[in-house]
Amino acid sequence: MMLEKTTRLNYLFDFYQSLLTPKQKSYMSLYYLDDYSLGEIAEEYNVSRQAVYDNIKRTEAMLEQYEEKLLLFQKFQRRQEIMTKLRKYTVSHEKTNEIEALLVELEKLD
Amino acid sequence: MMLEKTTRLNYLFDFYQSLLTPKQKSYMSLYYLDDYSLGEIAEEYNVSRQAVYDNIKRTEAMLEQYEEKLLLFQKFQRRQEIMTKLRKYTVSHEKTNEIEALLVELEKLD
Repeated sequence: MMLEKTTRLNYLFDFYQSLLTPKQKSYMSLYYLDDYSLGEIAEEYNVSRQAVYDNIKRTEAMLEQYEEKLLLFQKFQRRQEIMTKLRKYTVSHEKTNEIEALLVELEKLD
Repeated sequence: MMLEKTTRLNYLFDFYQSLLTPKQKSYMSLYYLDDYSLGEIAEEYNVSRQAVYDNIKRTEAMLEQYEEKLLLFQKFQRRQEIMTKLRKYTVSHEKTNEIEALLVELEKLD
């Protein structure tokens, strides 16, 4: 699997997993976070490898559709860039610790 | 209609309207943004007042379910609070204009 695609899907899963069914969540989590193979997931759930494959492909398409509509990942990336610039200006500020604490709070909301 | 409830639903509609069907969007937009009555919407779409009412009630419940799962409105409110505090620290900073421009960019992402 291409690393870039995996990273993107990890992020999308992170942002939209609350919108998935429990089964979709389990398959995606085993496949993308725990690095199980399709065959291993099929064995674990006592279903065919093809069934697991189809479910994961459908879930990936759903995650991309949610991202197309809500743009949470895109906005997250944009926020990160802005945060980097903000830190450059505020690092030498007399209130730098207080400001940094607020920036960390902001990041926790992503 | 209670003002507080209207404000909340306006925000939820803003955050999640991309997940609604075109009909749901039209009814909600006429009712909450353009202040049409149920009867006026029913006439416009040539359906019963009850059908419009049911559709809007279902949509409101969907919006609340999305909020329960994704918390976009809650996070938005939290971000606003943090922004207010950030501005207090940065208003007298030598780079205050550059910082303010970045904060405005951040807010545009909400």
